[in-house]
Amino acid sequence: MLKRRNDILHAPVAAFWSPASVAVIGASDNPNKVGGRAIHYMQRYGFQGRILPVNPQRAEVQGLTCYASLAHLPEVPEAAIIAVAGEAASEAIRACADMGVSIAIVMASGFAETGAQGRALQDDLMRYAEAAGMRIVGPNAQGMANFASGAVLNFSTMFMEVEPMDGPIAIVSQSGAASVMPYVLLRERGLGVRYLAATGNDADLGVSELALSVAADESIRLILVYVESLSQPAMLAQAARIARSRGARVVLLKGGSSALGAAAAASHTGALAGEDAALDAFLERHGILRARDIHELVNAAALFERGFPVREGRTVVMSHSGAVGVLCADAAERVGVPLAKLSASTLDALAQILPGFATAGNPLDLTASLLGNGAMFAQVLDVLGSDAQADMFVIGVPVAGPGYDVPDLARSAARFMQSHRKPLVVTAPQRSVRAAFEACGVPTYSSETGAIHALWQYAHAERMHCAAEPALSPTVTDVPQGLLDEAASLSLLQRYGVPIVDHAVCTDADEAAAIAKTLGERVVVKGCAAEIPHKSEHGLVHIGVSDAYGAAQDCLARLTSLGVKNPRVVVARMARGLHEFMLGVTVDPVLGPIVVIGEGGTLVEIRGDVVSLLAPFTVDDALAALRRLRIAPLIDGYRGQPALDADALAQAAVALGDFAIAHRTSLVSVDMNPVMLMERGKGVVVVDAVVEFGSQP
Amino acid sequence: MLKRRNDILHAPVAAFWSPASVAVIGASDNPNKVGGRAIHYMQRYGFQGRILPVNPQRAEVQGLTCYASLAHLPEVPEAAIIAVAGEAASEAIRACADMGVSIAIVMASGFAETGAQGRALQDDLMRYAEAAGMRIVGPNAQGMANFASGAVLNFSTMFMEVEPMDGPIAIVSQSGAASVMPYVLLRERGLGVRYLAATGNDADLGVSELALSVAADESIRLILVYVESLSQPAMLAQAARIARSRGARVVLLKGGSSALGAAAAASHTGALAGEDAALDAFLERHGILRARDIHELVNAAALFERGFPVREGRTVVMSHSGAVGVLCADAAERVGVPLAKLSASTLDALAQILPGFATAGNPLDLTASLLGNGAMFAQVLDVLGSDAQADMFVIGVPVAGPGYDVPDLARSAARFMQSHRKPLVVTAPQRSVRAAFEACGVPTYSSETGAIHALWQYAHAERMHCAAEPALSPTVTDVPQGLLDEAASLSLLQRYGVPIVDHAVCTDADEAAAIAKTLGERVVVKGCAAEIPHKSEHGLVHIGVSDAYGAAQDCLARLTSLGVKNPRVVVARMARGLHEFMLGVTVDPVLGPIVVIGEGGTLVEIRGDVVSLLAPFTVDDALAALRRLRIAPLIDGYRGQPALDADALAQAAVALGDFAIAHRTSLVSVDMNPVMLMERGKGVVVVDAVVEFGSQP
Repeated sequence: MLKRRNDILHAPVAAFWSPASVAVIGASDNPNKVGGRAIHYMQRYGFQGRILPVNPQRAEVQGLTCYASLAHLPEVPEAAIIAVAGEAASEAIRACADMGVSIAIVMASGFAETGAQGRALQDDLMRYAEAAGMRIVGPNAQGMANFASGAVLNFSTMFMEVEPMDGPIAIVSQSGAASVMPYVLLRERGLGVRYLAATGNDADLGVSELALSVAADESIRLILVYVESLSQPAMLAQAARIARSRGARVVLLKGGSSALGAAAAASHTGALAGEDAALDAFLERHGILRARDIHELVNAAALFERGFPVREGRTVVMSHSGAVGVLCADAAERVGVPLAKLSASTLDALAQILPGFATAGNPLDLTASLLGNGAMFAQVLDVLGSDAQADMFVIGVPVAGPGYDVPDLARSAARFMQSHRKPLVVTAPQRSVRAAFEACGVPTYSSETGAIHALWQYAHAERMHCAAEPALSPTVTDVPQGLLDEAASLSLLQRYGVPIVDHAVCTDADEAAAIAKTLGERVVVKGCAAEIPHKSEHGLVHIGVSDAYGAAQDCLARLTSLGVKNPRVVVARMARGLHEFMLGVTVDPVLGPIVVIGEGGTLVEIRGDVVSLLAPFTVDDALAALRRLRIAPLIDGYRGQPALDADALAQAAVALGDFAIAHRTSLVSVDMNPVMLMERGKGVVVVDAVVEFGSQP
Repeated sequence: MLKRRNDILHAPVAAFWSPASVAVIGASDNPNKVGGRAIHYMQRYGFQGRILPVNPQRAEVQGLTCYASLAHLPEVPEAAIIAVAGEAASEAIRACADMGVSIAIVMASGFAETGAQGRALQDDLMRYAEAAGMRIVGPNAQGMANFASGAVLNFSTMFMEVEPMDGPIAIVSQSGAASVMPYVLLRERGLGVRYLAATGNDADLGVSELALSVAADESIRLILVYVESLSQPAMLAQAARIARSRGARVVLLKGGSSALGAAAAASHTGALAGEDAALDAFLERHGILRARDIHELVNAAALFERGFPVREGRTVVMSHSGAVGVLCADAAERVGVPLAKLSASTLDALAQILPGFATAGNPLDLTASLLGNGAMFAQVLDVLGSDAQADMFVIGVPVAGPGYDVPDLARSAARFMQSHRKPLVVTAPQRSVRAAFEACGVPTYSSETGAIHALWQYAHAERMHCAAEPALSPTVTDVPQGLLDEAASLSLLQRYGVPIVDHAVCTDADEAAAIAKTLGERVVVKGCAAEIPHKSEHGLVHIGVSDAYGAAQDCLARLTSLGVKNPRVVVARMARGLHEFMLGVTVDPVLGPIVVIGEGGTLVEIRGDVVSLLAPFTVDDALAALRRLRIAPLIDGYRGQPALDADALAQAAVALGDFAIAHRTSLVSVDMNPVMLMERGKGVVVVDAVVEFGSQP
C-alpha cells in the first residue's frame, strides 16, 4: 500500500479526479436516487469519459446503455461507483478489485459507521482492495467531483440546486454536508470550485491524500479541508508545502474541537495544552490556516483567489461615513489588523484632488459626493495605492442609491487591484451594492468585521511559513513502563540535556543528612516513589529544611505507611528562580509529542498561560513561542526586575522535545513544575519531574 | 430644559415621532436632494399630516403648495425640517423657535462637527431654541422616521432603495450610516422597523432620550442603539427599565471602542479596567445587551421579535448531517450555550416515531429521509418540544433540493414555535432554504455560529436584570486636591469602612522604632510623601524589617534627598494574605465611578485578571463579580489551600464604592495594591493605597 501511495504522488491529479470511464453499479434512471445522481450530473455537466451504468433490471438508464453486471461491460472501467447496498456492495467492491478497477467510490453505507461488525467487514474489503491495487473513496462517501471535466462521481443534492462553475478552489472533506456547505457559500459569492470530495468513512483515500492529489494543480489557489479526525498528517503537510511553494494556500476546519476530552486528559500538561494544541502546532508549522467554522473556511477565498502581496498588512479604511471608519478600526483592533499610517505626500496629494478635504488620518472619511464621481474616486484610490505604507484596503459603502454610481465605483476598484496589485475589499450591507462589486471581481462583505477578518486571514496565511519536515531521531525502544518516580524521571531527562537540580537519592535518614551537608544550609527533602506522584498531598515535600535527617525520617515513615516497599527520599539543593515556569510533554496519537511551556507554580491550571510546540523544534522556535505567553513582558525585565534567562529555558524546552521524539512511540507525558528560571545568564533548573510511559511499550 | 424633558416622559411617542404638520425649509422638487427627500418619502409612505414646503423660489414642490417663507405658512407647523445651509440654517432655526415650532430636524451641517467656531454657533442656537421651548434633532442629522405613520423626516438614500415595513423594532443612532446599516440587514431578513433616528451632532435630543421616547410603545419589542459617545445615561437606563418591564429589550453598539485611550489612562486601575469597563458595567446593571458590530446588533432581532421564554437556555441541535451537529456543538461551547440533555422518555418517544433511530444524544443526527416527510418531522419536533430539559432549538439544513419538502418543514417549524412557545432557529447555507423558513417567520442563519450566537444573545438578554436606579449619597465637597500620600489615603478610606492595616505615621526614626515595637517583631517601614507615589522605585519600601529605626532613617534621608520638605514614614504591621488582590476606582466622566477588583501583586497589569462594577453596588454584586475572575477557583479553597474570605473582600469593595460615590464629583482614582486576603473568617487588609482627587474640586 505504501508503494502505491508513493506512486500516486507522482501523478497526483489524473487518476483520482479524471477517470476515462466510470461504471455505476446500482445505476438508476431516477436522477434523485443515489444510483442516478452521478449519471445525471456527468451528463449534465459535460463529462467526456464513458459512463457505464450497471443494473440487471434495465437495458437503458438515463438514455445510456445499461449492463447487467460488471462482467458484461465492454471494458474495464477506470472508476466505479458502488451505489448498491448491503451484501451487494461488498460483492461489488470485490468484483471491481478482481477485474482491475483503479478506484471505487463506495457510496453504500453499513460499514464502520455502524459498529464493530461493520468495521470488520470494512477492514476485510479494504485489505481485499489493497491486495488488488484498487483505491477506495468511502465507504459511506458522498463521492468526488471534478467540475472542470464534469467527472461528478457524487450524489449530493446540492449540484441539482446550485450550478457548479470551475474555479481555483478545492474542497476535501470527511463529511458530505461539510463539503457542500462551503461550496454553496462560495458559489453564492460567485466563486468557482474545481474539486470537491467527501470521503465518508475515510477508510483508504482520505482527505490528506486527496488534498495532496490536488496540491500540484497549477489552477488551484486554495484548498479547503474539513476533518473530524485527522489522519496521514505527513501527506497533508506535503500538500501544504507543494501548494505554498507555488503561492496556493490551505485552510482547515476541524469539527469536534469542543473539548470535553481535554478535561479528561490524564496528565496536567495534557489538560493544560487542551485537546487541540497539537493540531494548532501542526498547522502553524506547516503554514495551514485554521478556520473555526464554515464561514471562516470560505471568508477570505476571494482574496486567496487573487493572491496579491500583503507585505506588512497595513490597512487603509475609507468610507463616506465616519461610523463605518470607526467600526472598521474597532474590528481591526479586535482582530489584529494594523491600520496604515499614510505618508504626508499621500495626504498632500489627496488635498490636491479633494479641495477642502480635512481628514488627516486613517480611517479616511471621504465626502459622499465622491461616490457619485467615479473619476475622482479612481484618482483617490490611485494616490492611496501608491503609498508604500498602505498594503491593504477596505472601502465601506454603508448606503447607496440615487446619486451613487456604484457600477463605476466597482470598475474603479477592480482597476485599482489590477494596477496596484494590493488586496482590496468592500463592506456594504445592501445586497445590490455587493453584487455590483462582485460583478467586477471585487471581494465583498456585508459587515465591517467580516471584511477586516478576511484581510486578517489572508495576511496571516500569506505570512505563515511552511517548515521543512524535520528529520526524526531513531526511536528508543528499551524504556521503562508506566509512571517513573521523581529520581528516575530527573535522571532520564538529564541524559537528554534537561538541566535538573543537584540532588541525590537516599534510602535512609543518615545518608540524607550527609548528602544535605554538601548541598547547602537548607535543602529540599521529598519522598520518592512511583506509586505516589502527588507528593504534596501526602506531606512528602519539605522545602528549605535545615534538619534533613528529621525530614527524611518523616518521609520514609509516611511512604512505609502508604505501603511503599522500598521507601526512598530525594535530597535536593534549594533552587529559587526569579519566576517559576513549567515544561511538559503530551503526545498526540496522530501528530506526535508536543512540548508545553508556560507559567508554573501551583496555580498553573488556573492561569493557563501556556504555549505548545510540535516536537522537534529549534531554540528560535521556542523563543518565539515564549513571546506569546501572557507573562512574556517578564522576559526582558519588568518593573525593575532583572531580565530572565529565556535562552536557557528555550534550550531546556528543545532538549525536552528531543527526549520526547526519541521516546515518541512509548511516551505518555512529562510534567515538570516548577522550573526555576534565573536572571539572564544564570540558567534554569528543573526541580521536579514526572515522566510517564505507556504500560505496553 | 429639565422641566420640558420631564414633561416629555409623560407623552413619549407622539410629539417626536408623529407631528401633525411638517414644514420643510429649503424644500426641493428633486427627491434626491436633501430638501426633497423627506417630502418625497412622506408622500410615498402615506404620511397623513400636513406637509408644508418652504422655498421662496417655487410655488409648488413635488405637487404640493410651496410657501415663500415661514411667515407665509397657513399654520404653525408642529415640526420643521431645516434643509438650508450656512447662515440661512441659523436664521431658520431662530425663526422656527420664534413662531412656536415644537421640534426642528436640523439636517444642515457646518456646526460643532467643523470645530470651535461651529460649536459656538451651535451652542448659541441651542440656547435660543431651549429658551423658546423648541426641541432640536441635529444639527448635521439625517433625521427621524416613523414608518407606522409615514412621518419620514429623513434624507437617507436608503429608503429609496429598500422599502420600509412597519415592525416592532426601533433604531436610534448618532450616525446616519449606523442607523441605516442595521435597517437594511433587518429588512433583508424580512423584519420590520417602526422608528429610525440619526441625531448627528446630538446637540439636544440625543439617542438616550429618543430611546426613552419609544420605550413605552407597546408595539416595540427591540430598541437598537448606536452611540460613539454616550450621553444622558440615566435616560437610557430608564428606557431599558420601561422596555424590560414589558418584555422588550435594548441592544447597544458603541463605535470607537478600540482603546488607545485605555493605555493612556493615568491610574493603574484606569489602565487595567480599560476604557470600556464603565460602559460594560452600566449596560450590565441596566439589562442592556452589548453588540460588538452591526451584525451582532441585529443578529438576534427575529428572536426578540417573537419573545418566547428561554428558561435555562438548554439547546437541542438537530440535523440530518453529523457534521452540522458537531459544528453547532463546537459553536455552543465557544459561545457558552449549554446543550440540553434529553430525557429518557423523549428518546423513547423518538425511537417510537423513528424505528431504528440510534442516536442517543444531543446533537440529534436525524435521518435525511425525515426531511422529505413533514408529518413525521412535525412529530419529532413535538416530542422534543415537550421535553422539559429542552429550552431552545437549532435545526441545521446543510443542503436541500429534490427529495426535501422545505416549505413543509418550514410550516412545521413555525407551528412548533406557536404551540410550544420555545425559541427555534434554522441554519442553512442555501439562500433559497432560508427564504422558505423566513416566509413562515422562522429565524434563519447562514452559519452554525450565527445561529448559536443569536440564541446566546437572546438568552443572555432575557436573563439580564435591570437594577433599580440606586439612591446616591450626597456629594462630599470639602476634599483635598491632587494625589494624597499613603497615610492620608489610608485614613480617608478607613473612614468609609475600608479595612486598612494597623499603622502609624512618624516624623523621626525614634518614634518609628517605638511604634514598631507595638506592631510586632518585624514591621513594614515606608517613606510617605504625596510627591512620590511610586515608593518602590525610590527604595522607600522596607518589608519585614526588625530594625525599624534604621529603615526609617534610610527612608527619611532618601525623601530629603528627593526634595521632600517634611519627610515622614509609615510604620505598619506585617500583613500576609493567602493571596494578594487589588481594589481600585476609576471615574468615567459620564457614568461615574467604577470599582475594579482583581488579582493583585506586582504582575497585576500582566495578568489583567480584573472585574469592574459600577458604584454603588451590593455585597452580592461584588461576590458575583469575584466569581468571574480567572482566579475565582481560589475562593473556595484550591488544591488544599483554605478558602478565602471573599465576603470580607466584597465588603471592602462595597465600602470603596460608597467612598467613590460620596466623592464622585472630585475623585480621579484610587489604587489599592496589594490587598491581603486571608482565609475565610479572617478578613482582608489593605496595606497600600493612593487616592487622587482632581486639582480643581
